[in-house]
Amino acid sequence: MARVVVDVMLKPEILDPQGQAIAGACERLGFSGIRGIRQGKRFEVEVEGEADEAKLEEVRRMAETLLANPVIEDFSLHVD
Amino acid sequence: MARVVVDVMLKPEILDPQGQAIAGACERLGFSGIRGIRQGKRFEVEVEGEADEAKLEEVRRMAETLLANPVIEDFSLHVD
Repeated sequence: MARVVVDVMLKPEILDPQGQAIAGACERLGFSGIRGIRQGKRFEVEVEGEADEAKLEEVRRMAETLLANPVIEDFSLHVD
Repeated sequence: MARVVVDVMLKPEILDPQGQAIAGACERLGFSGIRGIRQGKRFEVEVEGEADEAKLEEVRRMAETLLANPVIEDFSLHVD
């Protein structure tokens, strides 16, 4: 069994009000030196067998169709 | 400016119904060979200056108090 991690983040040009709210809260709570925060999603996908090229391609198709919205989000894959 | 990534995942012993729902949807949509999915959060924190030990310690405190719920979640930090 192998674990493939899919990171999904809003595209840089898309506003992230949730991240902005978190950054504002950090400042109010006294954390200084924070320029900005963006929040995204992390999926840990456990696949059967080894994470070979075919498996990664399947997880990539899954990320495109189900885990991320490619209109507003970018995603990246890596084997953990 | 440096970017520190904070990954927050439910602890392994905590049930993740959201991840289970996604795994179920994957199977219905014809993706095979998926054993399970767990969903977590990914925060990209932009800090002023370099990501030295003091900055990382501040982000770690921020993750403990604001970004993660240490009762049910684990987090990890890395410099991007």
